[in-house]
Amino acid sequence: MDGKKEVTIYDIAEKLDLSPATVSRGLKDHPAIRKETRKRIKDTAQLMGYQNNLFASNLRSKKTNTIGIIIPRINSYFMSTVISGIEHVVNAQGYSLIISQSQETFEKEIKNAMTMYNSRVDGLLVSLSYTTENIQHFEALLRKKIPVIFFDRVFDDPTCTNVVIDNTKAGYDATLHLLEQGRRRVVHLCGHLNRNTYADRLKGYRMALLEKGIAYDETLVIVNPLNEQGGIEAAQRILQLDPRPDGIFAANDSSAVACMQELKAAGIRIPEDIAVVGFNNDPIARVIEPNLTTIHYPGYEMGQIAATTLINTIHNSRTSPINTLVLKHELLVRESSRAT
Amino acid sequence: MDGKKEVTIYDIAEKLDLSPATVSRGLKDHPAIRKETRKRIKDTAQLMGYQNNLFASNLRSKKTNTIGIIIPRINSYFMSTVISGIEHVVNAQGYSLIISQSQETFEKEIKNAMTMYNSRVDGLLVSLSYTTENIQHFEALLRKKIPVIFFDRVFDDPTCTNVVIDNTKAGYDATLHLLEQGRRRVVHLCGHLNRNTYADRLKGYRMALLEKGIAYDETLVIVNPLNEQGGIEAAQRILQLDPRPDGIFAANDSSAVACMQELKAAGIRIPEDIAVVGFNNDPIARVIEPNLTTIHYPGYEMGQIAATTLINTIHNSRTSPINTLVLKHELLVRESSRAT
Repeated sequence: MDGKKEVTIYDIAEKLDLSPATVSRGLKDHPAIRKETRKRIKDTAQLMGYQNNLFASNLRSKKTNTIGIIIPRINSYFMSTVISGIEHVVNAQGYSLIISQSQETFEKEIKNAMTMYNSRVDGLLVSLSYTTENIQHFEALLRKKIPVIFFDRVFDDPTCTNVVIDNTKAGYDATLHLLEQGRRRVVHLCGHLNRNTYADRLKGYRMALLEKGIAYDETLVIVNPLNEQGGIEAAQRILQLDPRPDGIFAANDSSAVACMQELKAAGIRIPEDIAVVGFNNDPIARVIEPNLTTIHYPGYEMGQIAATTLINTIHNSRTSPINTLVLKHELLVRESSRAT
Repeated sequence: MDGKKEVTIYDIAEKLDLSPATVSRGLKDHPAIRKETRKRIKDTAQLMGYQNNLFASNLRSKKTNTIGIIIPRINSYFMSTVISGIEHVVNAQGYSLIISQSQETFEKEIKNAMTMYNSRVDGLLVSLSYTTENIQHFEALLRKKIPVIFFDRVFDDPTCTNVVIDNTKAGYDATLHLLEQGRRRVVHLCGHLNRNTYADRLKGYRMALLEKGIAYDETLVIVNPLNEQGGIEAAQRILQLDPRPDGIFAANDSSAVACMQELKAAGIRIPEDIAVVGFNNDPIARVIEPNLTTIHYPGYEMGQIAATTLINTIHNSRTSPINTLVLKHELLVRESSRAT
């Protein structure tokens, strides 16, 4: 294969026996060119490896039909479910998707935003990292009228469009359930309080305690990265607490499962000694024994709605009038928390 | 924010009180411009949202410092481990990563390749979809001397560079282990035989049977998508087989776990009635009870090596001399298959 020469519209014109002007207009979908001819030109251009200099031409033709996603970690069942929902919508509308992960750091997220900007995405969907402090890194996009929509981990600002669930209510539901099963010393295992998702779930936890007249005890709130290691460490801390807690509400399922395994290995019976509730409804919640009570988080629907809102914003070439879009959640009671 | 006007080098020049020629050369890292000035120019350009028309300029300056990945599904613990390994290497080298998923279809993979091409990636890492029939869709990249390296699911062609494990040997190890535990009717649950990973594991399964003098029985080979539903369906089929199989070698852990759960619900004891071996060493293999024997697949290392090979190829501006790079695997024996 000869890599020395760029394919030009002249090459395409020669191949098709058309004028270069016709090829150029065909590639730009000019209505003066017949539809079949336009298709023939585009197919040939693609086959020959022609790189359309979209970006060197005028502002109007800048569409790349690509949508970007920045997420904290792709290593998450929840996130991959959201992405499936996004992909379903964007593909149906003729867009492609490119994904990058911030790995939970502000610094990396700033670079991700730059990469997306340089890849000339038509729009961006973002779930913020643990350590993100502001959203200035999206301003270069916003200045170009490239819409940015936040989902799950969002930025509390009236100018943003955010797709979320009611994390406060979900945290309240999870905790209230444990209290209604007669539990009185409930640990809350939560993530970085910089982020709405975790700060709000903690708020809900406190609301439920308040409602049931149980004093808030700071030593029962464990903040950690909520990964497997975090779950194990939480279990070790719980085993040292005196008196021992009788309930755990963890802000995700993977940490809840790791915590349960560690507790079981130490001879703790679940739910008899300690009842456990997770969050997200990952498949692992139905593999661990006893099966884990959890909050069903509609990730697929969240992806669909975030993508639909983004595409509408792109098509209307104006800022979305929506500030916050709240989806339903649901408490799924299983064996890990049933009164015994 | 005013979105009407593109930021030009003239705006940056005015802001910094430099000549436009200096700004232009600074942005191109021209050695005649002092290093601190270059940095000041680039920082200001970034802050002002200047979009460098990298692509409209000459071929030499075409680097975007972006590497693309196309994978079948991001919803896979194994794949996210590979991506972590890739990300570790590319970030250390100053590259960013963009990811897209083919969702196991050839058609989508062709579109992914086009998106990566249009995003002007400097190199591409690919794991093929179930239904990919050829690799012509990467030719536009190869013609531009943009290297493409395959990992895990690769294309058997002497011109490609492939990073794999020895799937035949791994399939042989898994099956031999079951036979050495005294099992005689071993089901093989495998994926689409278009792909080397599954075709080779089946080959290894057959080699182990042959070695132990056990006739190959086609009715014991179940080909399906290897997802949760696939595992459940395999279990239902196994329950109908007469005589009943006494072992299962599944080509991934998620289908093995779903299959085990379905069998357990039907009253089958594992490993007493049926011993089970999976593949990949996902965390779920240590959550299911009994814990699942599996093949450790070094995904992180595979990602690192694929990325290092790709970056070396980019830097040397020539095709990699490597055809195939084979990593080590390991059989991890746990309770799901121990002789009782």
